[in-house]
Parts: sequence; structure tokens; C-alpha cells
Amino acid sequence: MKIGLMGLGTVGKGVVHVINQNGDSIEKRIGEKIEIKKILVKDAEKKRSPLVEGKLVLDPMEILNDDEIDVVVEVMGKEHPALEYIKKALENGKSVVTANKEVIARHGKELIKLANEKKVSLLYEASVGGGIPIIRPLKQCLAANKIYEVKGILNGTTNYILSEMKDRGMSFEGVLKEAQQKGYAELDPTDDIEGFDAARKLAILCTLSFNKYVVPDDIYTKGISSISKEDIKYAQELGYTIKLIAYGKIYENEKLEAWVHPVMISKESPLNGVNGVYNAILIEGNAVGRLMFYGQGAGMMPTASAVVADIIDVVNHIPGKNGYEDADIIPIQDTVSKYYIRLIALDKPGVMSKITGILGNEGISLVSVVQKEVHEDAAEIVLITHHANTGRIFKALDEIKNLHEIYKVASIIRVEED
Amino acid sequence: MKIGLMGLGTVGKGVVHVINQNGDSIEKRIGEKIEIKKILVKDAEKKRSPLVEGKLVLDPMEILNDDEIDVVVEVMGKEHPALEYIKKALENGKSVVTANKEVIARHGKELIKLANEKKVSLLYEASVGGGIPIIRPLKQCLAANKIYEVKGILNGTTNYILSEMKDRGMSFEGVLKEAQQKGYAELDPTDDIEGFDAARKLAILCTLSFNKYVVPDDIYTKGISSISKEDIKYAQELGYTIKLIAYGKIYENEKLEAWVHPVMISKESPLNGVNGVYNAILIEGNAVGRLMFYGQGAGMMPTASAVVADIIDVVNHIPGKNGYEDADIIPIQDTVSKYYIRLIALDKPGVMSKITGILGNEGISLVSVVQKEVHEDAAEIVLITHHANTGRIFKALDEIKNLHEIYKVASIIRVEED
Ligand SMILES: NC(=O)c1ccc[n+]([C@@H]2O[C@H](COP(=O)([O-])OP(=O)(O)OC[C@H]3O[C@@H](n4cnc5c(N)ncnc54)[C@H](OP(=O)(O)O)[C@@H]3O)[C@@H](O)[C@H]2O)c1
Ligand SMILES: NC(=O)c1ccc[n+]([C@@H]2O[C@H](COP(=O)([O-])OP(=O)(O)OC[C@H]3O[C@@H](n4cnc5c(N)ncnc54)[C@H](OP(=O)(O)O)[C@@H]3O)[C@@H](O)[C@H]2O)c1
Repeated sequence: MKIGLMGLGTVGKGVVHVINQNGDSIEKRIGEKIEIKKILVKDAEKKRSPLVEGKLVLDPMEILNDDEIDVVVEVMGKEHPALEYIKKALENGKSVVTANKEVIARHGKELIKLANEKKVSLLYEASVGGGIPIIRPLKQCLAANKIYEVKGILNGTTNYILSEMKDRGMSFEGVLKEAQQKGYAELDPTDDIEGFDAARKLAILCTLSFNKYVVPDDIYTKGISSISKEDIKYAQELGYTIKLIAYGKIYENEKLEAWVHPVMISKESPLNGVNGVYNAILIEGNAVGRLMFYGQGAGMMPTASAVVADIIDVVNHIPGKNGYEDADIIPIQDTVSKYYIRLIALDKPGVMSKITGILGNEGISLVSVVQKEVHEDAAEIVLITHHANTGRIFKALDEIKNLHEIYKVASIIRVEED
Repeated sequence: MKIGLMGLGTVGKGVVHVINQNGDSIEKRIGEKIEIKKILVKDAEKKRSPLVEGKLVLDPMEILNDDEIDVVVEVMGKEHPALEYIKKALENGKSVVTANKEVIARHGKELIKLANEKKVSLLYEASVGGGIPIIRPLKQCLAANKIYEVKGILNGTTNYILSEMKDRGMSFEGVLKEAQQKGYAELDPTDDIEGFDAARKLAILCTLSFNKYVVPDDIYTKGISSISKEDIKYAQELGYTIKLIAYGKIYENEKLEAWVHPVMISKESPLNGVNGVYNAILIEGNAVGRLMFYGQGAGMMPTASAVVADIIDVVNHIPGKNGYEDADIIPIQDTVSKYYIRLIALDKPGVMSKITGILGNEGISLVSVVQKEVHEDAAEIVLITHHANTGRIFKALDEIKNLHEIYKVASIIRVEED
């Protein structure tokens, strides 16, 4: 079994390592040797490991048109030209293994169709949850279920930042800077901190779980850059932890809810203990009940573990095919939740009654209210609502924002109880 | 795809339900209809669901010799005659799906060999962790790893009893009786409470994880019947929770450690939050790092979810073969751990120095000591040791037990920090 590796960055190096380190025991198990024949890189000058000597190529066609290569492993990242290379590989009758969530989330449908036509495999276990086995369990182990809910912590960078903010009382900006210095966060961290990375993974999970084709643009997405020290502190006082949650649900009428944004989760939630670079995915199925998968969502070796497992599946001829219907997504305004709202207001009598009046007009009632003086003439007001329609919450906040007693609507965060 | 179901108890009924309820969506996914053709039962008089009308048979040969039946699903339980029926089915060229941990743990090696010879599948996802996908992830998703540690809460009954003892301060006997009345525990609970059920599941997990053939008799096994209210209370005071843990590890020299017994685990362990009927399995692999799988370890529908997933794999021709070497198990005396020891002693000066003297002679030092008067002339002494050789702990306790100041060695429980 000869493979062509496209990309030799974090994950690519991991793949080389895993095959080098565990190759013998893999060969024993599957009865075939996995050999990396060629490796595509961009920069011919970079210093590389002796393990890859003589294998580097700069022209993708050397891999894509090599008849001896059965499997192309794409770990370059970015949408282009990875998409074009994957297509070409499939067209040439090669199976493809990829860790590229951007390509799979945006173009999965056409790529899967192409792979089915060409009777080859397209596998992408590493694209969601890094080393955590989740794609394959969804396809195989839970095949007897109707899955109706998926909930996860899918991004290690944001989870690390939120964990550090909580444990060390630091600001978002402070932790982010430190994480960048340590190499835990990218220099351009937008994809992670704004939730785009999690939304891509959620799109893939929803598609597989519900058998409905969901793309990242369908998903309401909000990151963690607006989470302040104050919110973290209030969350703790109220018995919650703030996590960036990716959520998908299919209703009886086949409509889908799908969003990524910060959520206050209760201390009892199995997601509460998921800290730092760990990811976790909760699945609810009609037969199996609740399941959780937990592990390292990124990193050289965990991600490579998933990529090499896919390669082994190709060797074992384990089919990867799938077909989906289109999804009917519920607008975020029509979803229902409890909310935490933090306002900065003039410290004057009567403000509270105006606020509760506006909320009341939208049919929104409150679980709890805390008011605190923050300085001379400003008060911080923290509200937790009962379950309410999100559109009405947004509408009420628009009105509240325009009250002349209100300096600003500082935060609005979903609250969940289990 | 026609199947023959052997057994129509808890799991068998679940299989009928799942196929009835989710059959259409399964057919859509796999492009084939799953039909239960015949069902073996023992008692012709029992009232059964209308779903099984006209399918019941009392003679196993009606299934085992029916050429139209491709897959035999064995959910009768017990070692015999299940083993004989499974063998016959394989010999007749039928694939077998089973939930029977006893048969797989004790006879897996010969059955797998037979299935390989006959080029049919033998699948047993439901035998460990009920609905939790664990067998298939171990075989496929983690195939690129050397797995070196497996740790789990594998028995729901004991986990439920320990959770209730902790939450409600009740005695072991009290909770067990209540659990039996509610149907959460069997009328003969020996297999569960003495750890035998967990040991069978651990044997299967170790075999798959380490590629070494482990049988239940290889596993040092101790249940929870000796755990007292006092131990639960002390554990909480010391910051631990008592769980029945199944543990397997492979060392560099290829020797195995494998045991099932109560352990005090720290509040930080991911296993700490696993309560009631939930099971969880932690896996450590050399590429993937730490993973956890969490879900319902038993019950009609979760277990059936796993059984039907196996049936679907047979339809999809996903191979189930495996080969193992024999295991070299380390005697429990040669393993190393911290220990919690509770003694009831005469409340007299000098007792403590005798005890620490004996421990010191065996090279065992202490992390902490608590002494409490329990009544007039008896004191309770609770010790936590540093890491020590288990054989030396046993030896020291033999000596301590014979001190005339000691009424009894009330408990000895392993202590783990992560
Ligand atoms: N890192 C993780 O923990 C992780 C986890 C899960 C999934 N993933 C996914 O895995 C993929 C790879 O991530 P990574 O972190 O390994 O990326 P990376 O470290 O940036 O490495 C990218 C590699 O691809 C090569 N490359 C990029 N564009 C190329 C082009 N146009 N032509 C030829 N070679 C090109 C680079 O070549 P040079 O070496 O010459 O620069 C480099 O070797 C991404 O899709 C990512 O989302 C990553
Ligand atoms: N229950 C769970 O949650 C669970 C979870 C994981 C694995 N498992 C495993 O699944 C298996 C089945 O468990 P279960 O709880 O479903 O057992 P169960 O409720 O006791 O049902 C056993 C069924 O098998 C039939 N049966 C037993 N011996 C037979 C014989 N000699 N000939 C014909 N029929 C026979 C019984 O027939 P009658 O109906 O006529 O009495 C009954 O329908 C066991 O191996 C168990 O370890 C169970």
C-alpha cells in the first residue's frame, strides 16, 4: 500500500512519525505494509527530518498522476488548492484521506458523490475532534439509531483560553497573547476565536448525525472574543462555566437547529469537566441514549492517529460512502433558551422597572437579577431569563440598548442546565 | 438480509424494537432490509409482543440449519448452550453477533479462529459497555496506536450501588436490597457485585487493546461487598470517591497488569463524574494520548443499539477478524500502588508505633494517618500509604492482623491520583 502525502506540517510530520513508530504492529494487524512514497511540500529549503529524505516533491502532479500511489493523504490545510488536489486524486481513482474540515464542510457533498462514482474511499476522521474517534462511530456504531442531538466542545484554542481565564482570573486579550507566545494559538487566531473552526466541524457532525447536508454558512456563529472577566466571574457565582458550545438538533418535523456560541453550562453537565486542549462530543440517539466521546482535539500525534486509522480502513476496504438530503435550518431567532444578560446602566431608581417592563412586553420573565454598583454613577445589572424565544430576546435588548439610562449591553450568553 | 435471533429477553426485545422503530432509516443507509426470520425462546407459554408473532421457535436447529439465515444473533446469555450454538452457526457458515461477554471472554480465541477459517464475521460490540462504542473504535479507530493502558467503570449495578451509598449514606446491604426490588440488580447479584462481570469485560478489552489473549481467570478480581459506609465517608473526607475499577496495562517488557477491584479515585479523575448506571472507559495510546468513552453500559435499548450496529456491519462486509498472542500476566503481589487501610484497634498508646513499625519493615511509608475513638476501648485507624509493592502490603497486614491490639483489618482499597 503506497501513499502520497500532501503537506508536511504539524499533522504531516505526525503521520510520518506514527507510521515510523507503530508501522510494524500495524503491519502485523492488517497484513500489509504502509509506505509513504512521496511527500508534497511548498518550501524546498526547509530543514526536514531524515525520515523523509528522497521523498519530497514540489509538483502535486507527481503524486496525483503516480499510478503506484493508491491513497492520497491531504494534510496541507486551506480550502485551495487542497480542494482541487482532492478532486483530481478521486478522479484518478485514488482513495483520499484528509484532515481538512474546511474542504469537507464546504464541499463534502460533491466530493462524496465523486468518490462514490469512482468507487474509492474519502475518509476524514481527523477533521473533527482530532484524535477522538467520532466520524466512524457516527457512521458505524450508531447506525442503528436516529440521532437527534449533538453537542460539543470542538475547539481546543478557545477552550484553553476560557479555562485559563477562569482559573487565573485573566482577561481574554491577556490569555490570547500568552497562548500565541506559547504556540497554543495561531498568530491569526480569527478562525478559532470567532467560532469558524467549530462551525466547520459542527457542519460535518450535523451532516453525519442527521443525514442532512449542513454547511458552515447555515450555522449561526459567535466566538469568545467578547467574553469578559466579569462574565466569567458572574458565571462562577451563579454556578456555571462558560464554554464555546457547538450544538445541533433535529426536530420531529425534520427541521434543524445549529449554532456555535458561548454557553453557560451547569456544573452537572458532563461537558463541565472538559478543560484546556481537550474536546468532547455528546450524542443523543433514540436507542443508545446519551454518549460522550472525550480526548485531544488537535496536536501532531493525536491527529495523526486518526489520519493513519483512515489509511488502515482504506487498506481494509471499509466503505466510506454516504448520501444526504438537504437540511432545513431554523433561524437562530426562532430557537428557545434561557439567557444571561449583563447591562451597564445609570445607577438610578426606576432603571430596573424599565428593563423588566420591556422584557415583560416580549413575554420574557426572569429567574434572577443581581445589581451591583461598579463606580459612582454606574451599576452592573445581571439578569438570567427563563426560557424565551431568542428573537424576542434580541428585540427586547435592542429596545433596552436605546434607553438613555443604559450605557451598554455588555453581554448576552445562552444558559443551559444539563 | 435474514437474521435468526436466539433469545428474546431484555436485549432480544430491544433488538426487535430497534429494527421495528429505525428499520426504514437503516434500510435507507445501507440499501438492504434487515428481517428477523426466526426467534428462539425457551418458554412457549410466555406472553410476547405482536411484533414477534409467527417467528418463535423452540428448536435451535431451526435457526442453525436454516440456509436462508445469514446472521445468527445470540442474546440468550450464559456460557452453555450459547457457546455450542455459536460454534454450530459459525461452522454452518453464518456470521454471528453476540452480547455474551462470558462466551467471548472465555472462548473468544477459538471462536475467532473458527470465524476466520469459515470467512464469516464474529462481532460482539454489545458485550462490553452496552451501548458505548468501544470494541469497534479499539479495532479500527485506534489501529494506528500502541495502546498501553485501559481503565474503566464497566459494571452499572456496582456503580449504581456505590453512587447511592455515597449520596444517601446507606449501607451496601440496604442499597442492594432496594436495587433488587427496583429491578436494577439481579436476584442473584454475585456476578455483578463480586466483580466477575467487570472481569469478563476487562478480559475482552485487554485482549483487543494489547493484542494479547487474556481470560477472566488471569484477572485478580475483588468486588464491592466489603465496602462499608465508613469507607465511603473516609474517602469523601480525604477527597476521593470509591469506584469499582477495571484496569489493564502493558509494560515495555510486554508483561500485563490486569485487575478489578474497588479504588479510591481523586476528584480530578475523569471517572469521578461517572455515576449511576453510566459506564466509562479510558484508553491511553502512544499517538492519541488519553481518550474517554462514556454512556449507558446496559439496558434494553442501548445494548440493542450495539447489537444492531454489528448486524449492519455484517451487511456492509466490514471484517471482524483478529489474531492474538498469549498474555504474560504480572501477579497482583508484584503491582505497585498507594493504599487506604482501615483498622479497628484497641484504643491504647503504643498501637500506632507497632503498626508503623511493621509497615516500615516492609519499606512502606505513610502519606497520612487518622485515628478516631469509635467506642470506649476501640479506635478506628485510617492510613494512606505511599506507593508500595502490593505483596508487601499484604504481608504487613497479615502481621498487623495478628497483633493482639488489633480487632480487625476492616478495609484495604487502592488509591489513585488521576
Ligand atoms: N494541527 C492540528 O492539530 C490539526 C488538527 C486537526 C486537523 N488539522 C487539519 O490538518 C490540516 C493540516 O494542518 P497542519 O497544522 O499540519 O498545517 P501546517 O502545519 O500549516 O502544514 C501545512 C503543510 O502543507 C504544506 N503546504 C501548504 N500549502 C501547500 C501548497 N500549496 N503546496 C504544497 N505544499 C503546501 C506546507 O509546506 P511547507 O512545509 O513547505 O511550508 C506544510 O508542510 C489542516 O486542514 C488542519 O485544519 C490540524
Ligand atoms: N441486559 C443487559 O442490559 C445486557 C447488556 C449487555 C450485554 N447483555 C448480555 O446479553 C445477553 C442476554 O441478556 P438479557 O438480559 O437479554 O437476558 P434475559 O433477559 O435473561 O433473556 C434471555 C432470553 O434467552 C432465552 N433463553 C435462555 N436460555 C435459552 C435456551 N437454553 N434455549 C432457548 N432460549 C433460551 C430466554 O427465553 P424465554 O424468554 O423463553 O425465557 C430469554 O428470552 C447476556 O449474554 C447478557 O450478558 C445484557
